[in-house]
Formats: sequence, structure tokens, C-alpha cells
Amino acid sequence: MRSDQRTPDQLRPIVLEAGFARHAEGSCLVHFGNTHVLCTATVDERVPSFLKGTGKGWVTAEYGMLPRSTGSRMSREAKQGKQSGRTHEIQRLIGRSLRAGVDLGLLGERQIIIDCDVLQADGGTRTASITGGYLALYAAFVTLQRQGLLRTNPMTCHVAAVSCGLVGDEPRLDLNYEEDSTAEADMNFVFTDRGDIVEIQGTAESKTFTRPQFDALYALGQKGITELIDHQKKVIAKL
Amino acid sequence: MRSDQRTPDQLRPIVLEAGFARHAEGSCLVHFGNTHVLCTATVDERVPSFLKGTGKGWVTAEYGMLPRSTGSRMSREAKQGKQSGRTHEIQRLIGRSLRAGVDLGLLGERQIIIDCDVLQADGGTRTASITGGYLALYAAFVTLQRQGLLRTNPMTCHVAAVSCGLVGDEPRLDLNYEEDSTAEADMNFVFTDRGDIVEIQGTAESKTFTRPQFDALYALGQKGITELIDHQKKVIAKL
Amino acid sequence: MRSDQRTPDQLRPIVLEAGFARHAEGSCLVHFGNTHVLCTATVDERVPSFLKGTGKGWVTAEYGMLPRSTGSRMSREAKQGKQSGRTHEIQRLIGRSLRAGVDLGLLGERQIIIDCDVLQADGGTRTASITGGYLALYAAFVTLQRQGLLRTNPMTCHVAAVSCGLVGDEPRLDLNYEEDSTAEADMNFVFTDRGDIVEIQGTAESKTFTRPQFDALYALGQKGITELIDHQKKVIAKL
Amino acid sequence: MRSDQRTPDQLRPIVLEAGFARHAEGSCLVHFGNTHVLCTATVDERVPSFLKGTGKGWVTAEYGMLPRSTGSRMSREAKQGKQSGRTHEIQRLIGRSLRAGVDLGLLGERQIIIDCDVLQADGGTRTASITGGYLALYAAFVTLQRQGLLRTNPMTCHVAAVSCGLVGDEPRLDLNYEEDSTAEADMNFVFTDRGDIVEIQGTAESKTFTRPQFDALYALGQKGITELIDHQKKVIAKL
Amino acid sequence: MRSDQRTPDQLRPIVLEAGFARHAEGSCLVHFGNTHVLCTATVDERVPSFLKGTGKGWVTAEYGMLPRSTGSRMSREAKQGKQSGRTHEIQRLIGRSLRAGVDLGLLGERQIIIDCDVLQADGGTRTASITGGYLALYAAFVTLQRQGLLRTNPMTCHVAAVSCGLVGDEPRLDLNYEEDSTAEADMNFVFTDRGDIVEIQGTAESKTFTRPQFDALYALGQKGITELIDHQKKVIAKL
Amino acid sequence: MRSDQRTPDQLRPIVLEAGFARHAEGSCLVHFGNTHVLCTATVDERVPSFLKGTGKGWVTAEYGMLPRSTGSRMSREAKQGKQSGRTHEIQRLIGRSLRAGVDLGLLGERQIIIDCDVLQADGGTRTASITGGYLALYAAFVTLQRQGLLRTNPMTCHVAAVSCGLVGDEPRLDLNYEEDSTAEADMNFVFTDRGDIVEIQGTAESKTFTRPQFDALYALGQKGITELIDHQKKVIAKL
Repeated sequence: MRSDQRTPDQLRPIVLEAGFARHAEGSCLVHFGNTHVLCTATVDERVPSFLKGTGKGWVTAEYGMLPRSTGSRMSREAKQGKQSGRTHEIQRLIGRSLRAGVDLGLLGERQIIIDCDVLQADGGTRTASITGGYLALYAAFVTLQRQGLLRTNPMTCHVAAVSCGLVGDEPRLDLNYEEDSTAEADMNFVFTDRGDIVEIQGTAESKTFTRPQFDALYALGQKGITELIDHQKKVIAKL
Repeated sequence: MRSDQRTPDQLRPIVLEAGFARHAEGSCLVHFGNTHVLCTATVDERVPSFLKGTGKGWVTAEYGMLPRSTGSRMSREAKQGKQSGRTHEIQRLIGRSLRAGVDLGLLGERQIIIDCDVLQADGGTRTASITGGYLALYAAFVTLQRQGLLRTNPMTCHVAAVSCGLVGDEPRLDLNYEEDSTAEADMNFVFTDRGDIVEIQGTAESKTFTRPQFDALYALGQKGITELIDHQKKVIAKL
Repeated sequence: MRSDQRTPDQLRPIVLEAGFARHAEGSCLVHFGNTHVLCTATVDERVPSFLKGTGKGWVTAEYGMLPRSTGSRMSREAKQGKQSGRTHEIQRLIGRSLRAGVDLGLLGERQIIIDCDVLQADGGTRTASITGGYLALYAAFVTLQRQGLLRTNPMTCHVAAVSCGLVGDEPRLDLNYEEDSTAEADMNFVFTDRGDIVEIQGTAESKTFTRPQFDALYALGQKGITELIDHQKKVIAKL
Repeated sequence: MRSDQRTPDQLRPIVLEAGFARHAEGSCLVHFGNTHVLCTATVDERVPSFLKGTGKGWVTAEYGMLPRSTGSRMSREAKQGKQSGRTHEIQRLIGRSLRAGVDLGLLGERQIIIDCDVLQADGGTRTASITGGYLALYAAFVTLQRQGLLRTNPMTCHVAAVSCGLVGDEPRLDLNYEEDSTAEADMNFVFTDRGDIVEIQGTAESKTFTRPQFDALYALGQKGITELIDHQKKVIAKL
Repeated sequence: MRSDQRTPDQLRPIVLEAGFARHAEGSCLVHFGNTHVLCTATVDERVPSFLKGTGKGWVTAEYGMLPRSTGSRMSREAKQGKQSGRTHEIQRLIGRSLRAGVDLGLLGERQIIIDCDVLQADGGTRTASITGGYLALYAAFVTLQRQGLLRTNPMTCHVAAVSCGLVGDEPRLDLNYEEDSTAEADMNFVFTDRGDIVEIQGTAESKTFTRPQFDALYALGQKGITELIDHQKKVIAKL
Repeated sequence: MRSDQRTPDQLRPIVLEAGFARHAEGSCLVHFGNTHVLCTATVDERVPSFLKGTGKGWVTAEYGMLPRSTGSRMSREAKQGKQSGRTHEIQRLIGRSLRAGVDLGLLGERQIIIDCDVLQADGGTRTASITGGYLALYAAFVTLQRQGLLRTNPMTCHVAAVSCGLVGDEPRLDLNYEEDSTAEADMNFVFTDRGDIVEIQGTAESKTFTRPQFDALYALGQKGITELIDHQKKVIAKL
């Protein structure tokens, strides 16, 4: 049993609360256990310059953590005057992952900005951001459809993400902070509802790992993402 | 009647939820109507260099807005690489106001950092930050007392804040965003529970205003702050 | 008697020297005793983007201190790569205060930039900047009228500013640096020649203060600003 | 056949020239075809603060591209005043990958900085950087051994990296720029000489991909890295 | 005759006003005609890290221009967040030039910071800065001697600077802005009172120039600097 | 004899390898002994705003050093977030020097950007950059002629540069790093093939120097630049 009483292949309690943010075109507050991320989607009628005149749209993401979302306070990136390497890496991952689920031609020449702000962190903030950001994006598309600005919802599949890792040689699903900081290896999977691969990122932390270990982590990832997509579907049904 | 059905001297619904943030030594989620600010207090055993060896402590504040806390998305200060003039002004105000309620000698050589992050904005974010930041700070002092690190709570009085303004020549209490953006004059009052003045800031927006108008706004501020301090007291009673 | 031989309600020697800067459309070197600020006004035929097409103009301000304007050298903001929170706060105050005296419609779609650079500091640099900046702005309007670019001077009233404070419980007018750094409370008033309020900023420094104390400071501010506006009028008469 | 006359499972011509940089403790100029990266290793007797007193060392990496290493000139990051998200992501990957091959306890409290500067780019700069950076690091360890500062070489295994991708549904090894920019999916593998996994990064570009496709890319990666490690071994034999 | 009625080998009216800045250990307001620069010297008891423990001191300089010192307003470097290449170049020149006149061993382990701030610009701001900065530095040494902190004045010679240029093929001394902006070639000389060379900088602007032309400019520079050093001597005599 | 077996008036071994960089419109790898600089020329069809509509072009330069081009590692300017004063000074010098050899009217409204990146440093990087940058620029003009975008090569003369210095009172040509760091005086000359002056920069390092010493250094500079231009001519003959 894990420290929070989960079996190795068990997700933390998942909450997906759409519409949390009053002003945004789409939003979702996501809980992966004690990890809480507020995801909002903003419709911007301008596109990046490389898309002007192409008829295609774009989805991009920004990521931030509140200074005291963590056990010891992190300094505020706005005050330091730059975003860390980790922040850059995560927001690029979120943007790429969500674009994989969107037909950018159907979206038309407009950009959706997904802001993922971590209110409380306990491991897995990037996978929670992708899973919740998907819903914020979906909700923004629904808004655009209701406003008559889109005829077809440009989402082509579900996208969700989960972390897995080797802790004391045991493959585990959806690591919390304590597990994450002691894991020998750490993977993030982003899959679609067809089980296709959007993104795979795996890193050996304290020691390298083998192909069979990878396969065990992959199987956990598939299981977790299937469950997360079920959660997404229930929320979408009520939008 | 105002657009949100309030009388001119009526506060918006006030919610003060202490302990909202799991990791912080003290925290408070404050609602002034649709303005929601998450205030956390972090204890830092280092002090700014000008206080080293003096035996005195410090209270400072940082302020930020989530990009989509507002009706149209604000660009993320961390990405722009600097905090705006408005942010600087507000966080300096919060810090000064809260220090006025603290005996810095009793605090001892440590610093409390108050982070005020606006999750949703509808006017009055700085006054909500002061009112909620007071509780986060108070809660951190309680934590330090429970840990045996402080013998006496260094808070010497209550501090709360409210905005008032002239809208169509009518003095009104606790402006929402719509009122704030059309007000001819705009004041922020920070008072103690003895009715003493901590900070007064008044600005003529579309036209200058007179001393009698100032006096009317001052009276509204006193009334509002008295009520806010009653709310604070109820929360403190349960800490 | 104060350390510089003034009575509590006495301004320091005031000098307002218009036309000090050869290149600017308007300029004023202002002395409040040993506080010396060079204010220049630059006419810029472009307006900020939010005013394009509105037919309205803008007045904005920037503020700086020479590194050795002060008793101990301040580091150069240009070298540090950013302006401090204090600088942001002061330049926003100067801009707001001066705009209160201008009919921005009469100004037309152009911007006036007021630069206030402190050559020597001895307390009250922001109030000197507003009082002298007013004259630089006025002079720039006269220049525009002489060039036939403005038919009517868009200045609608006088604007001047002064600080007041409680020093050893005594209300005093126009604090110098020594007084300012020991004051229990510190106020800045910006008033018009009709006695109307443009801006009020008051801060409790070492202790909070009462409404009667506020009223005493307010009366001093009124007296001081009346005298400063008399100085302004004499300069304007010779432009 | 591919545009550069390779079979799908064929590496580009590999050149690893150790000792290219006169001043560095270790260096390697690496060619993956027309991709040329200069890797240097600098020994720094200080460690990051989180390692002080632990007896352990660190390996970190920095990455840059010469402005005209690419077909159209990239603006110089030093002039823009910040490193891009892509740069942050790549240098973090290089550092993590190389640390996986080092016993940081054996290294002792010192830091090795690996600089990877792209002189010419034609796809695969990050995998060339890891493969060549490994040799620069190895050479620096040899230098430290010759100087008597290290008794044992702290390298525990070989580490090399290669990219693979799906181009027109065909799995291909070691993509050049033209292939990389049209690939449907793109993976980077970092493996050891035992075939263990150090890092796996896979991204769906124009469409998602399946597990069998992943397995085919994985097999190509294994083949390529085995060959790259053979190249590394030949260089090490002559150090 | 030149536009300002000077002969080709004539300096503009020179004013050197020592003690202009109340707070600085040494200061000088220098006029080269309409070019006005305020130079201050600050004594800092710390030295740059490369001098710690050497017993030697340092002289460094910083340079800035007030935004409206020029005919059209320059943007404020503090606001832009960085100093321009021109600013860097000039402040390095001032520092190097002044250090050439100082025995850094006699100065002892302390640093003198020379701030040169251009209040009004009409060509030659860098040469005015060196010539006036010399006096600010000298005055600071006198202050240190009077305070008993220095036994011997560490200044070993006079240092002054002047610009020369080819305007319409005519060699001219001490160019004003109008001449400077049309000169074919432009030189800055920094010499000592023995006629020795501290710094020579010459740049072909619209066309290259010959050795005989260089020699003519050199002779003008010698003449001008001899006169400037006479001005310096008169000021020093009264310190 | 000098430490590297040269006579005082002897250049180090000079290598100029045109076409080193595959992607650039012009390029040259230059060796002045162990100083190696990669110079590339990029054609940009846009000009700086002050040239728009004038029919004239521009040549500008940027300069950088790889972190470990030097004996002890320099921190990466891209990471520090700004270019040093030295970098600014050098890139301005390179740009000015090369523009002196170009008829900007013949170039037409386009800009050439010369990037000079130091792969290995051993003194004289700025003079090597000018000498090699000249060839990169020349080659870019040849490319534009071959593409039919230029009818006439806009280069009007040769431009090359060399350093000279006083070491132990001996005038020496083309200083290496060891000599440069101990030189009493240090000059950089930029001349044309007609012997005309483009730029002269001389600095007294540990002591001032005399006119006869200057003349001796000047003569060395003439000799060295004549030889460098012979090297340039041989390369151009083969373009």
C-alpha cells in the first residue's frame, strides 16, 4: 500500500470542475488529489504571425505556480523577471499535447490560450494541467459554437495525461510529490481516447531503467488515462 | 439601487475562508463579491539586510493576478519579464498597511511574506488583499505561537481596507469593477479597529472633488471597515 | 523651531525657474529648499494606442534620481535594468495629478511626456515634481499655441502638491529629508487653485494617526498649496 | 532511399573529434552529417548550493546556436536578453542525460559544465550534443585523473542519443532537418551501452502514432545508439 | 568662421564649477558651451572582487543622459531596462581615462565611482565628462585627505579630453552637435599635462582619412587639452 | 624573440577560410594564430527604420564568444540576459569599420548582418573579426551579384585590422593573449588598402605613452595590415 492508501495502479481522487472561472470562455479546476490547477481558455482573434493568411488557428499554453502552492515558498517568476527552464518546458508540453487533439483548420484563424495556474501542488501538475486544460479548451469551443463563430467543434479526440514512476522498483500510477521526489524513474504519458500516443517523456532519475520496466509503466499509463478520459466525458456531457 | 442591488453604503457579500492553502503557515481565501483573492503567509527566518542584528522582523507582500482573472486576458507578468507599475504600487501598499498592525520587535528577526494572488477580479482587489492578508498573517502568528517560536502574538490591532467612490456624484461603498471604471473619484481607506488611519489614498479620476465629498466617502469607509473587522473577528475566534 | 529655522506651517524657499532646459518644449527647474528637480515637457505627436482615433490627448510622466542626488549613492536604475517600485509609484502619481488639470479633448491627439529628474534630494521630490512639472507642461502648451498647433490652452486649473507630516506629534508642512525619515505619519496633498482635491495619499509610518491629526495636516496642505500656486502664477505671468 | 541516399535505418556520417578546443579540460567536435556541435567540458571546483557539504558533484549543460548555424538567421539570444523555451528544454535534457552516466559521489564536490554550441545545424542538434558532450565529459575526467584530482573515473556507463521519426509513415533513423520538419512523429532516445533507458521523448507532430509504430522507432533507436557508442569507444581508446 | 563664431582651433566657453552637488564627496558641473554634464565622485569603501586583498583601489564611471537633454527626446534607459551600447562604450572610456591619472596603490582598497550625467547635450559629452570627472575625482581625494583617510593625493597627473573632427575637410577643435553630425571624421583625444597619450579614438564617418589629416587633428587636440588643463588648475587652486 | 618565436614586427600565422559556414550568404573562418573567429554574413532585405525610403543599405555586426573559448570559462551572455559593455563596444567597432569600405547607396535598401563568433581566443579577437568579417561581407556581395540582385559589388576598398602594443617598452605587432594582458599600451588600427585610416583606438594600460611610441606602433600597424590585405586578396581571387 502507498502512503496515501492507494494500490500501485490507482489514480488519486479526480475532480474536474468546469466553469470555475467566471470571465474565461472556457475553464476547469482540476484536482489530482492535493494537486489543484486552475485552467482557463481565452479566445484571441489574432494568430501568431506564421499563421496569418493560412486559415488555420493555434492553441498555446502558459503555466505558472502560485508562490506558496508548494511546501516551501517558490520565488515569484514575475518578480525574478523570467520564467524558469522548467516552466518553459511544461508550457510547451501542454500546448503541443492539446494541439494534437484539435483540427486547426476547423478552428479558423484564431488562437486559444490555455492558462494553467497551480493553486496547490502535490506532484503531477503538468499531467493535471493537460487533462484539465483539455476541458477548458473544449468548453471554449462550445462557447464559440454557441456564439455562432464555429460551426463544428474542432476537437478530434480526447487528450489526457498521467505520470507513472518506479518507486523502490515498483511501477506506480499517478505519483504524488513524496513519491515523485524519491522515484528512480519518472514518465509522463499523453494519450488519446483511441490509445494513440501524443507524447511520451521518460527520465531516469536515480538510475536507468529497462525496457520491461518501461512496458509496465506504459500499461499503467494506459489504464490511468482511460479512467481520466471517462471523467472528461462525464463533464462534457453536462456542458 | 446599484446594478448589483446594493444600497450605496452596503458591502458586497464577504467571505473569509482561513486555511484554504494546505502548505502555507497561514492563509485566507477572501471574497468581496466576485473578487476572489488567495492570501498566503510564509514564515522566512531571514530578514532583509537592513534589519540584521536589530532584533526586529519584517512583513512584506507580493501581489499578482492570474491572467484570466479579468474580463479580457492580461498578459502574464512572468512572461513579460517585469511587474507593472500598478503591481508594484499595490504590493507596497499591502506591505505597509499590514506592518502598521504588527509590533515588529515582538516578531523577532524573521520575515513574513504575504502573497496575494487574484483568482478572479471584480474591483477592489487591493482592499480585499489587505483584509484577507491580515488574516493570513494572523494565522501565521498563531502557527508560530503553537510551534513555540513566538510567545506573544505580535498583532497590535485589526487592519482592514475598503474602497469608496463617487459614481454619478453619489458616494458609494466597496465599488465593483463596473462602478470603479466609471467613478469620478476613487478612494481606498485602511483603518484599524480603533478607527485610526493606516493609509488613505484618493484620486480624482474624471474630475476633482471637494472636501465635503471627501468627508462623505470617509464616513462610508469607516462604516465598511467596521463591518469587515467584525468578519475578521469571527474567523479569528475559530483559528 | 525646526532644524532649518522654519515654523511648522512654513514652506522651504521655493524657486521655480522656467525655461531651464534649452531643448524641451517646456521646462522648469524647481527648488523646494535643497530638493532640486529638473522638469521637462516633450510634445509627442503620437498617443498611446487606447486613444487612437478618439481625438483626445494624454499627459504622462517619468521620474528618476541621479545616483548621487542623495546622501549615500543610489544605484543607477538603468544599470540595474529596472525601475524600482518607488519610481513606478511616483511617476504614476505625477502623471495622474497633472492630467487632472488638463482638458485632454482640447489637447487633441498628442501626448506630453513630463520628465522629472531629481538633481538633488532633500525630501519632497514627488511634490516638487508635480509643482514644477505643472509649469513645464504649461510652458509646452504655450509653445504649441505660439506654433499655432493649439488654439486654446488646455489647462483648466492650477495643480500643485506639498507634503505634510507628524513629527514628534507636531503637524508640519513641507518636510525635509531629516524630518521625513523620522515622521510618524506622512501625507502628500495635490490640490487645485479652487482648493479641490486631486490626490490625497497618507501613510502611517511608525504609528497610526487619528482623524483630528489628519484634519490638521489637511489644513497645512491647503495653506502650502495656496502659496505654491502663487509662485506658479508669477512664473506664468512672464512666460 | 532518403534524400541524402541513406537507408531508413542508417546514421549520417559520424565524426567525433576529441580535443578540438584548446582551453577546455575536455572537448569534442561532433558531426552528425551536416550538424556540427562543439562540446566543451569545464571543471568548476564549486558546486550548486544544494550540494554543499554533501561530498557529491554535479554535471550541468548549456546549449546555444550560432545565429547563422541555420538556413535563415536566428536572432542572438544574448541580444534578446533571454534564452528561448527550446534552449531551456534542450540544455536540461543534456544535463540530465549525462548525469545518468556519472557516479556523482565519485566525482566529489565539483561541478562539470558541458557547453554545447551548434556551429551548423541540420537536425538532431540535441542528440549530437548528448553524444559529443559525453566525450567532452569523459575527457575532462581523464584530465582530472592525470592531475591526480580523481582516483577513479566516475563514468559508470556510456550514454548516447539519437532521433528517430515517422516520415510518410516510414520509421527512419537520425533525421536531418528536411525530414525532421516534415515528420509526423519525432522521438529522441538516450540509452546506455547496456541498452538501458536514460531518456525517452516522443512527440506526435502532424498526427498521433500507435504503439507498434513506437516499437519500430525504439528498435531503430537501439540500433543507432549501439553504433554511436562504438564510435565513442574508438575515441576513448585514444584519449 | 564656424556657426558659433569660433575659429577652427578654438574651444567653446568652458565652465568648471566644483562642489555643485551638495551630497557627493567630490563634484563638478562642466560646461563645454551648451553641453552641460554633472560629474559626481562617490567614495565606496568596498572594491571589486578582483582587487580584494591586493591593497589597491579602483576608479570606475557611469554615464547617463537625461531624456530631454537632447533635441528630440531619448527614451529613458531605466525604463527600457538596459543601457545602450553607446552608454557602455562611453562609461568604459571615462573609467579607463581617469584611472590613468591615479596611483591605485596610493588610493588603497577603496573604490571611487564617477557619475557623469548629461543635463544638456550639444556634442562632446564624453570629453566634457572626462574633463569634469577629473575634477570630481580630485575633489574626492581632497575630501579623503581632509578626513585623514588618505595621506597623499593619489592623482599623478592631469587628465583632460577633447574632440576634434574634419568638417568639410577642415580640421576643427571641440565640435558641437551640428558639426559632429556632419563631420567626415571624428577623434577623441585624452592626454595628460605632460602631453602623454591616455587614449586616442578616431573614426572615419562619411569617408576615410589620411595620416596628415590625423596629424592636424592631433595638433588641435594638444592645443585644446593644454587649455582645458589650465582651467582645471585654476579650479584645483581654490579647492 | 617573443614567447611564440616571432619577431616584434611579425604577424601570427594567418588563415582565412572562406565558405566555412554552409548556410550563410558569405562566411569566413579566420585564424590569427590560436585566435579563431567564425564570421558569417546574412542578407536581410529589411533595413533599419532610419533608412527606409532612402535607397541606402546598412552593414551591422554582432559579436560573441563561446563560453569556453577562453582559458577560464566566461559565463554565457544569453544566460545572463545581457551583453557586456565589452561586447557592445566590439560589435559597434566591427560594424563601423566594415561600413567604411562599402558604398551603401550601391548596396540598395537591404542590410547585411555580420556575425563574428569567437570559437577560440588568444588575443586580437576584434581585429580578426574585422579582417575576416570583411571577407564574409565580400562573399555575400558576390552571392548577391550571382543572384542578379546587385549589379556592382558595393565594396570600395579593402578593410583590415590589427593590434599593436608596448610590451616591456618594445613595440610589437599582433599581440597574443599573454602579451595583451601585460602590455603597457594597446592599440587597434583599422586601415584600408590605400593606407587610409578607418579607425584608431589606443589605450594606455599600465602607463601613458608618448607620441614617438605612438608613431612606432602606427608603423607596425601599417606593415601588418598590408600583409593582411594580401591574404584577403588571395582569398577573393578564388571566390
